[in-house]
Amino acid sequence: QGILERLDAGEIVIGDGGFVFALEKRGYVKAGPWTPESTVEHPEAVRQLHREFLRAGSNVLQTFTFYASEDKLENRGNYVAEKLSCQKVNEAACDIAREVANEGDALVAGGVSQTPSYLSCKDKAEVKAAFRKQLDVFMKKNVDFLIAEYFEHVEEAVWAVEVLKESGKPVAATMCIGPEGDMHGVPPGQCAVQLVKAGASIVGVNCHFDPDTSLETMKLMKEGLQAAKLKAHLMSQPLAFHTPDCGKQGFIDLPEFPFGLEPRIVTRWDIQRYARKAYDLGIRYIGGCCGFEPYHVRAIAEELAPERGFLPEASEKHGSWGNSLSMHTKPWVRARARKEYWENLKPASGRPYCPSMSKPDGWGVTKGARELMQQKEATSEQQLKELFQKQK
Amino acid sequence: QGILERLDAGEIVIGDGGFVFALEKRGYVKAGPWTPESTVEHPEAVRQLHREFLRAGSNVLQTFTFYASEDKLENRGNYVAEKLSCQKVNEAACDIAREVANEGDALVAGGVSQTPSYLSCKDKAEVKAAFRKQLDVFMKKNVDFLIAEYFEHVEEAVWAVEVLKESGKPVAATMCIGPEGDMHGVPPGQCAVQLVKAGASIVGVNCHFDPDTSLETMKLMKEGLQAAKLKAHLMSQPLAFHTPDCGKQGFIDLPEFPFGLEPRIVTRWDIQRYARKAYDLGIRYIGGCCGFEPYHVRAIAEELAPERGFLPEASEKHGSWGNSLSMHTKPWVRARARKEYWENLKPASGRPYCPSMSKPDGWGVTKGARELMQQKEATSEQQLKELFQKQK
Amino acid sequence: QGILERLDAGEIVIGDGGFVFALEKRGYVKAGPWTPESTVEHPEAVRQLHREFLRAGSNVLQTFTFYASEDKLENRGNYVAEKLSCQKVNEAACDIAREVANEGDALVAGGVSQTPSYLSCKDKAEVKAAFRKQLDVFMKKNVDFLIAEYFEHVEEAVWAVEVLKESGKPVAATMCIGPEGDMHGVPPGQCAVQLVKAGASIVGVNCHFDPDTSLETMKLMKEGLQAAKLKAHLMSQPLAFHTPDCGKQGFIDLPEFPFGLEPRIVTRWDIQRYARKAYDLGIRYIGGCCGFEPYHVRAIAEELAPERGFLPEASEKHGSWGNSLSMHTKPWVRARARKEYWENLKPASGRPYCPSMSKPDGWGVTKGARELMQQKEATSEQQLKELFQKQK
Amino acid sequence: QGILERLDAGEIVIGDGGFVFALEKRGYVKAGPWTPESTVEHPEAVRQLHREFLRAGSNVLQTFTFYASEDKLENRGNYVAEKLSCQKVNEAACDIAREVANEGDALVAGGVSQTPSYLSCKDKAEVKAAFRKQLDVFMKKNVDFLIAEYFEHVEEAVWAVEVLKESGKPVAATMCIGPEGDMHGVPPGQCAVQLVKAGASIVGVNCHFDPDTSLETMKLMKEGLQAAKLKAHLMSQPLAFHTPDCGKQGFIDLPEFPFGLEPRIVTRWDIQRYARKAYDLGIRYIGGCCGFEPYHVRAIAEELAPERGFLPEASEKHGSWGNSLSMHTKPWVRARARKEYWENLKPASGRPYCPSMSKPDGWGVTKGARELMQQKEATSEQQLKELFQKQK
Repeated sequence: QGILERLDAGEIVIGDGGFVFALEKRGYVKAGPWTPESTVEHPEAVRQLHREFLRAGSNVLQTFTFYASEDKLENRGNYVAEKLSCQKVNEAACDIAREVANEGDALVAGGVSQTPSYLSCKDKAEVKAAFRKQLDVFMKKNVDFLIAEYFEHVEEAVWAVEVLKESGKPVAATMCIGPEGDMHGVPPGQCAVQLVKAGASIVGVNCHFDPDTSLETMKLMKEGLQAAKLKAHLMSQPLAFHTPDCGKQGFIDLPEFPFGLEPRIVTRWDIQRYARKAYDLGIRYIGGCCGFEPYHVRAIAEELAPERGFLPEASEKHGSWGNSLSMHTKPWVRARARKEYWENLKPASGRPYCPSMSKPDGWGVTKGARELMQQKEATSEQQLKELFQKQK
Repeated sequence: QGILERLDAGEIVIGDGGFVFALEKRGYVKAGPWTPESTVEHPEAVRQLHREFLRAGSNVLQTFTFYASEDKLENRGNYVAEKLSCQKVNEAACDIAREVANEGDALVAGGVSQTPSYLSCKDKAEVKAAFRKQLDVFMKKNVDFLIAEYFEHVEEAVWAVEVLKESGKPVAATMCIGPEGDMHGVPPGQCAVQLVKAGASIVGVNCHFDPDTSLETMKLMKEGLQAAKLKAHLMSQPLAFHTPDCGKQGFIDLPEFPFGLEPRIVTRWDIQRYARKAYDLGIRYIGGCCGFEPYHVRAIAEELAPERGFLPEASEKHGSWGNSLSMHTKPWVRARARKEYWENLKPASGRPYCPSMSKPDGWGVTKGARELMQQKEATSEQQLKELFQKQK
Repeated sequence: QGILERLDAGEIVIGDGGFVFALEKRGYVKAGPWTPESTVEHPEAVRQLHREFLRAGSNVLQTFTFYASEDKLENRGNYVAEKLSCQKVNEAACDIAREVANEGDALVAGGVSQTPSYLSCKDKAEVKAAFRKQLDVFMKKNVDFLIAEYFEHVEEAVWAVEVLKESGKPVAATMCIGPEGDMHGVPPGQCAVQLVKAGASIVGVNCHFDPDTSLETMKLMKEGLQAAKLKAHLMSQPLAFHTPDCGKQGFIDLPEFPFGLEPRIVTRWDIQRYARKAYDLGIRYIGGCCGFEPYHVRAIAEELAPERGFLPEASEKHGSWGNSLSMHTKPWVRARARKEYWENLKPASGRPYCPSMSKPDGWGVTKGARELMQQKEATSEQQLKELFQKQK
Repeated sequence: QGILERLDAGEIVIGDGGFVFALEKRGYVKAGPWTPESTVEHPEAVRQLHREFLRAGSNVLQTFTFYASEDKLENRGNYVAEKLSCQKVNEAACDIAREVANEGDALVAGGVSQTPSYLSCKDKAEVKAAFRKQLDVFMKKNVDFLIAEYFEHVEEAVWAVEVLKESGKPVAATMCIGPEGDMHGVPPGQCAVQLVKAGASIVGVNCHFDPDTSLETMKLMKEGLQAAKLKAHLMSQPLAFHTPDCGKQGFIDLPEFPFGLEPRIVTRWDIQRYARKAYDLGIRYIGGCCGFEPYHVRAIAEELAPERGFLPEASEKHGSWGNSLSMHTKPWVRARARKEYWENLKPASGRPYCPSMSKPDGWGVTKGARELMQQKEATSEQQLKELFQKQK
């Protein structure tokens, strides 16, 4: 059954987690470029991560094609072996995802994300050409459906959806925005409306914000669609980091990004709360993005097991709400084998010299700079520096 | 070259990270039992983790035989498919480790750890028999050397070393103790002396405490050996969690153990500091335990690259001190591409409703209970409960 | 010169600090009732506090008549010696304030605050009668001007202003509301408009929220007045506690109120920042409420000394920005004798087991309850309890 | 009855709180010099603070003669009007204390503290002469007993005790040290022994450390006296600031000293716990130092009311354990009117951008510098600077 058949039938579809962060920690992706050349260089590592998500309950395996547009790969050229063409990277990603999907009952989704071409103000035709290049691979490899994800500007996301729709396959679209809307100031509700009008059957958010903030954005998207009397399935794939202190542009502006985010990593219990809240909000495609490890995806599947009627395979190695501690030799550890304990725990950071929140750097906090960027005038390096200095 | 040749020549040997925690998050190990039956059930997952550590710079791959003594596996019987005999689990662990070690320049170490037999007061012969059963497999599979690790009582650790020494192979021994010493009150310095006298060529600590605390314990071990005019190589494999608030028995007594430890996870920069401090203390076998992911091991290798003269393979995907951010489009993210930035960052938890430290549960904080346990009188469940209630 | 002459001439007028909290700590006011019978019982204590504020730079001494309406004093009857009539308490307050004001160049302001009569739904005439009773004393004692302060409902505040205006003296009016507006849902801008239309020459906020939050509310009041093309002087007298975690009803709902607020107390440097921000926003009557001690008021006067051209008397005992440390014997303490040091210090709480923020109790967080209260339907104790239980 | 008669009879004697910090906040003492010239300049302010402590339960009023030795006052000469001789300041302090003591049942204690003469290595005769000059005033004004307090070196404290003993009046002696002992490395137990041998009838600690740390030091003093088979009454007057992060020299080295200590201020409930612990340890003279406000002293008296059989006067304005909230209109505030609530509250700082602990500056953390100072070699300014730079 395809993605739309499942969602139309009221099923809960569980997404997967974040590849670039997980593989960075495993040693296969470079922070900064964040490009997926490991599909060719180290397919076994990509395959294993797919398998872990499948086992944890993912119903969709996204091809590891994040930032795999030709302009991005070229842009990051010094990190990528010369012979790794855009086509090879995308093809390998499709092959690996399909191989693992066939081990279970998962769908394969081909994904595109925002391009350097758009950010450097190339025209619509050129940006669309970049998406089309990836789409050609997805069609050749016959993925099950398509996802346009990680867009900061709804304009580019709409272009991506328009290209993907040419395929005739179902299209999902998620933006990496918060409640304040896209980088041009378009509010979440309007973003959702534009995406659905462009042809997306599933809309929502991914990345950049923590689960709570992402669900606030989802609420606004839902209300926008209702006001416009449009129908679409809702989808959320937030960070697995606590980011209550984010500005408009999300976690990239936090001083801890990307090498000091550890204390912000969410627990499995945080994810169970997220999954329940997402479900209650009417979201039926529930997954994660950066920071989501397999056990976080399993937590979604476990929280919603009553509704779905089954547990994922990886729950063989997990007691619900800590009940695997019930045989511990220490009575106070046994006392942790219950839901109330983990639901109410306020975990300590073990870092008495650290604060609990940070002030975001840069544009995240200054309205003037934000407006400048929205006008796409901030092209010159020197201009940016001056602006940055002035606003510090 | 064997482990002792390397250490005797003054080389730095980098250990690997923690299997049970890493594989728990990947869906292959159950928290509570923490047994390694996945060597038989899911060898590909174990193999991939070994590969990641190898790639990150590990010179030693430990067989995934933690808690794989027969009494432990039986004790946890309900979690293990009946046909997974102790022998099969240990053999598979050896085969996988050797297979990956051959892909690089790593040694394979067979490991034993503390047994339920000892904790339930079985006699010396019975406890030794359990170790010998695992040793038989290690000899058959011809591992390169042996590690007795994760012992709370030096008495049992000495028994383990005595058994392992029967093999004629080099033996390393690490205890999961802090500066207060073992659970019978033997101080770290004396523990080290007893282990060396029993035949260990390498001694140190693993697990239960964070890097800083573990290095305090190492300092006491070193001083103990010096006072006794004994020579041995030093080894440390601490947690990758910040635990300044631990009591005598380490992180198990922290309220966050084991499902709420996320905010305590150390950064790669914390590990670089640890590696440098360990090196300065004279430790030459430097690795990690629970919480250590491949990128943490890589951080050891990168910190000590000047001394060693080379970087690990996985550093192809990592810029030293964040320099891979130097091409970021945002100037304030580029500003993070330098050592001073990450060295001085005090990362926020993103959790304003959580404290920075916890009070340990149970015996960790009460001397009376601790003494009782040290006398091994606390056998009855009812007795424990009463004690626990009284001491709350 | 009167209050309006000063403000009209562009002078900065500095208010005083919080009497009930300061005198509670000194042992003269009971938390809970918060009534000012100490004007009769212990005039020396009230007099001394006035003197300290005068010395710290206060240009206005408010009579200590907070919660001194007859209905309030009766309501709290068990705490007040029977012979302390409302009239005596208010008269003594006027006498003490005038005595101290004459020692310097300060004005005396008679103050009224919200009444139990209003909260228990008495009619307009009855509520106004309560204010008039206090006004009679103020007229007899010939205070310089009048303040209606600490009102949660603009309706009652308007009634108070109407009564006070009968006197012919200048009237200031401040509400204890945040950016969300009054308890009936009237936004700050509209509150300000209503108060000015009722006759207040000076409007603003006092109590319930920290300086930053209070200035947000002031901004909304200012915008409301501008939109309505009304002119009035602006006045702010916030808490000296950090309360970023407050709900709509302010600090009373915080779990720490009123006996655990210590870690939230603001520093003198926080107050200097507040004074500057208030000034920049166009506020010219700048003072404080609960938590403000004399040194906090002095900090306002020191921050605005460049604009005013003089320092308060108490600055004889205070070096600007810590410069009195410049002769300390320890070099690292001398290093603290500079503005940059104190401006940038992030002071630690010394409480590693405590969080940085709390969740407010009760109505502060639940919209349903808030609405109920706004409708004044929540009169029955039983009803409240059920509601509270349900919403926990 | 004199101080020794009371203590010998088993009475609990309650001390007073910290004058320099309280009067600094009220505008009468300058931080840095910390000298008590306000006894002449503003006697009403000193008198009022004495009265508040008396009312809160203090059985002893200490003359406000801290840092009032002639060498200190001269040293701080630029802050003190020339005509304020040492004699005048000390005489006024005695007169005010006696006046207030006569309003109740309190004793007057004349106090001396460490001198610049000692720190600049003047000889024993010269240092003693400074103490004798103050003692002459105390004898003329006939104080009830004498306190030598705030000594960092036991050598100087012994000299002070020897001088004070010349008077024939009872002598108490407290040092501002922590568990690591005095600045020359003399452990607390030996300090106590030396003080008793010099003639002190009451020994203990004051200032520099929080209640918990101070009680640790007291335990060591008690054990030292027991080991030496000496008898003396025990006395503790700690800070009212949480300082778990102090180094050997106490709160002066904390980055927050003295103008950013607000978040560390202890609650009344912290003080009740302190009073109980002090009592259980056998301490019978229980008071406070810097940070102690009248309500903190009242908390000692309320905690020990069951043992003493009465409450202080100021408890007329205080409900035990928050019970004055039991008539609040909001049910959730009423719910705070109980002991369990306040005992278990972990109060938030309201400062999400601040840490919970600090690293002390300077000598507090570096052993080399500490040793240097102990040898009194660190006399030259230049030397200190170099040392400080090197150790940063």
